[in-house]
Amino acid sequence: MYDTIIIGSGPAGLSAAVYAARARLDAVVLEKAAMSGGQMVFTDQVDNYLGLNGKSGFELAMAFREHAEAAGATFQEADVKEIQKTEEGFVVLTEAGEQLQTKTVVLATGAIHRHLGVPGEAELAARGVSYCATCDGAFFRNRIATVAGGGDTALSDALYLSRLCEKVYLVHRRDTLRGNKELQEKVFQTENIEFLPCREIKEIQGEGKVEAIKVVDNRTGAEEVLETAAVFIAVGMEPVTAYAASLGVLDEQGYVIAGEDGKSQVEGVFAAGDVRTKAVRQIATAVGDGAAVIQSVETCLQGR
Amino acid sequence: MYDTIIIGSGPAGLSAAVYAARARLDAVVLEKAAMSGGQMVFTDQVDNYLGLNGKSGFELAMAFREHAEAAGATFQEADVKEIQKTEEGFVVLTEAGEQLQTKTVVLATGAIHRHLGVPGEAELAARGVSYCATCDGAFFRNRIATVAGGGDTALSDALYLSRLCEKVYLVHRRDTLRGNKELQEKVFQTENIEFLPCREIKEIQGEGKVEAIKVVDNRTGAEEVLETAAVFIAVGMEPVTAYAASLGVLDEQGYVIAGEDGKSQVEGVFAAGDVRTKAVRQIATAVGDGAAVIQSVETCLQGR
Repeated sequence: MYDTIIIGSGPAGLSAAVYAARARLDAVVLEKAAMSGGQMVFTDQVDNYLGLNGKSGFELAMAFREHAEAAGATFQEADVKEIQKTEEGFVVLTEAGEQLQTKTVVLATGAIHRHLGVPGEAELAARGVSYCATCDGAFFRNRIATVAGGGDTALSDALYLSRLCEKVYLVHRRDTLRGNKELQEKVFQTENIEFLPCREIKEIQGEGKVEAIKVVDNRTGAEEVLETAAVFIAVGMEPVTAYAASLGVLDEQGYVIAGEDGKSQVEGVFAAGDVRTKAVRQIATAVGDGAAVIQSVETCLQGR
Repeated sequence: MYDTIIIGSGPAGLSAAVYAARARLDAVVLEKAAMSGGQMVFTDQVDNYLGLNGKSGFELAMAFREHAEAAGATFQEADVKEIQKTEEGFVVLTEAGEQLQTKTVVLATGAIHRHLGVPGEAELAARGVSYCATCDGAFFRNRIATVAGGGDTALSDALYLSRLCEKVYLVHRRDTLRGNKELQEKVFQTENIEFLPCREIKEIQGEGKVEAIKVVDNRTGAEEVLETAAVFIAVGMEPVTAYAASLGVLDEQGYVIAGEDGKSQVEGVFAAGDVRTKAVRQIATAVGDGAAVIQSVETCLQGR
């Protein structure tokens, strides 16, 4: 019977792992794949996590992972299927059929990229449709690429791709971008990025690989087909919480309802990082969550 | 007229400075002394800020400062005397007589640990005298540690240390503990915690590192010397907010009443880090606060 099982090994899970290890809790971090870091590993360069600027998301993830290991955190590769409440705590069921007993659980599985839901998106996934410019951008060197979205990620992606590709379309359904001003300035200063405001991608076209997109101008209804070799989709996130559905801790969008202390509505169930209801989803806030949640876990364990 | 003035250059203020600079806000960080870092600079080794373990508080503070400067943050040495609300925003008055105009203010002046004020405390600070069990407890694994205090923090610290240390003395000047009953019960049930009521630490002894404490029984005047490798002083914190008293944003203890978004009760006044009402005061949570508060500041500025 563990004191706590931390599910997920992004910044929140790893920060929680450091605090749990230092608190000498009997804890394990469950991760879907041996590669830690969560969403951040798909980020070209991270410059806003205080003290570690100028690193790639991958490098930062490695530094985080090494820290957790140095602190004595234990990891196990496991895909969590379900969590069941029991008399004594919880049973975490894995896809491999394992059953892990624990007094508390920390949900730190983050959130993943939302899909556009248009024809061609699923069919051409990994054939030009991508949710990760850093991962797949290099395959489209000197080609035309398209980014869908208007937030920080979309702008970062467009800038990243502008250095590799001949041209980048930035397709956004609104007339203004949402991302931060610094990124916006850079985007507008970059000659080979063409911003297409008030446009929606209606279809991704191609035989076996992406060849074009059909976009509609939502002000006029006018349609246009643009040649592109890739579509990078950066239109937001969805929490990874299907495994926690039966616990009764999720909101309508699937986020774990929890404040900065990480306490969910069910005693013994905690959440940290992007997976919980919060306004700002950054590496820095996820790391802070990891620290705070373990204090809540400890208080809970002390009350048992 | 600044967009925002960030007061304080600890982890919260510096993280806010990075985010403000990247958001292209017209901002300045006011710091009492040219040395940034806040409380953390007094910490021997910081091992719980994810990704940067094994550094001294000073080194970490330097890394934070360099990051903020690289991001383009502007600093000014100034001791803030008062903040006045004006028609257009705020006037920040400094002890040197300067008046700085700003649309918003971010209070990030932190809180300082209350001292015992006994011989040896200052001399052996970061040499066994600590104000943060979560931060430094791990350095005293399998040793004898002492906690001074009787509130929730002292009890949590004692419980935390009981799992790491061979033995924990809990020294409190009253005959009963102040902390919550649940924590008290746990403390009394923990075999390796010895509660020493009506005792006051008169001196912290040691050559180069903590070796013992001299305690006096305030009922009898009897003195005793106890061997200990560490003294964790948990006799309260004091927020640094005298300059903000007239704004009407403080609670009875002087903390700025604000949630994780950093919004105070007065529009345009924000708080980040230890200075605000919160349960967990760590470098990681302060850095997270700095990221979150700038989003609130931006929203406020956009709404003007």
